[in-house]
Amino acid sequence: MTKPEFPSSAVAADIAPRAKASAYPEPFASRMIGREKRALGDLFGLAKFGVNLTRLAPGAVSALRHAHAVQDEFVYILEGRPTLRTDAGARALAPGMCAGFRAGTGDAHHLVNATDAPVVYLEVGDRTPGDSATYPDDDLVARGTSTGWAFSHRDGTPY
Amino acid sequence: MTKPEFPSSAVAADIAPRAKASAYPEPFASRMIGREKRALGDLFGLAKFGVNLTRLAPGAVSALRHAHAVQDEFVYILEGRPTLRTDAGARALAPGMCAGFRAGTGDAHHLVNATDAPVVYLEVGDRTPGDSATYPDDDLVARGTSTGWAFSHRDGTPY
Repeated sequence: MTKPEFPSSAVAADIAPRAKASAYPEPFASRMIGREKRALGDLFGLAKFGVNLTRLAPGAVSALRHAHAVQDEFVYILEGRPTLRTDAGARALAPGMCAGFRAGTGDAHHLVNATDAPVVYLEVGDRTPGDSATYPDDDLVARGTSTGWAFSHRDGTPY
Repeated sequence: MTKPEFPSSAVAADIAPRAKASAYPEPFASRMIGREKRALGDLFGLAKFGVNLTRLAPGAVSALRHAHAVQDEFVYILEGRPTLRTDAGARALAPGMCAGFRAGTGDAHHLVNATDAPVVYLEVGDRTPGDSATYPDDDLVARGTSTGWAFSHRDGTPY
């Protein structure tokens, strides 16, 4: 018998949302208003990947449109009808649909809730070290560090 | 613009189930009857982790009860009421509940569909190399190799 330090199961919606709404510097952090993340994987002490239950109020977005160099991403829509925006354009998603964003393609993505109803989805991302993210629509570059993301302007100036 | 080699979104239930029902040797493979996996992450070319949409018919199980040495696991229940079995005993899960299985604890887990209705869930596992799995209820040991799992008896004899 092992002594569990973490719960083995939970009602996802009962988990408290993350206190800090966004790690972005301003003016980008304010654009994440209406986005709420519940860190499901962290609750169980998972280290290799994160899983969030994320809720977008009407008008909210999942993130700035971005592409990861090293870390894969995956989303599964539970509720609502978000718009997936990538380099290829916009696509309407619905409950039971999923999307995957392979690292290193350079194709930037995010979800936009352009409806009047909430959007709820699961998002998964691995935690492979040495990641970076690019933002084609914004003057922002992110570099993964051991303590989180370091953000700079495209010219290298830190925020 | 990048040229996508993979789709960026899909209806999860429309993806064909895996052709091979189980990688286990007999007599264990036959015990996986009624389990159907749709490889969602692979569809998008994700390499760092796998995400499956898994369906358990009444009486089916998610896997032999097992513990991973290196790879974390996570499940989110979409439909039905599976029983989660760990070293701590049995716990009833329901839609909107999730469970996480941190690598290296030695606490073995699986889901059992002891109901008359189907169970559907998402399962996530990373693909960190060098994994192994132990099976406290069965004479089986699994070692991760570059081409998949190598299974042996507890005394080291291969199946």
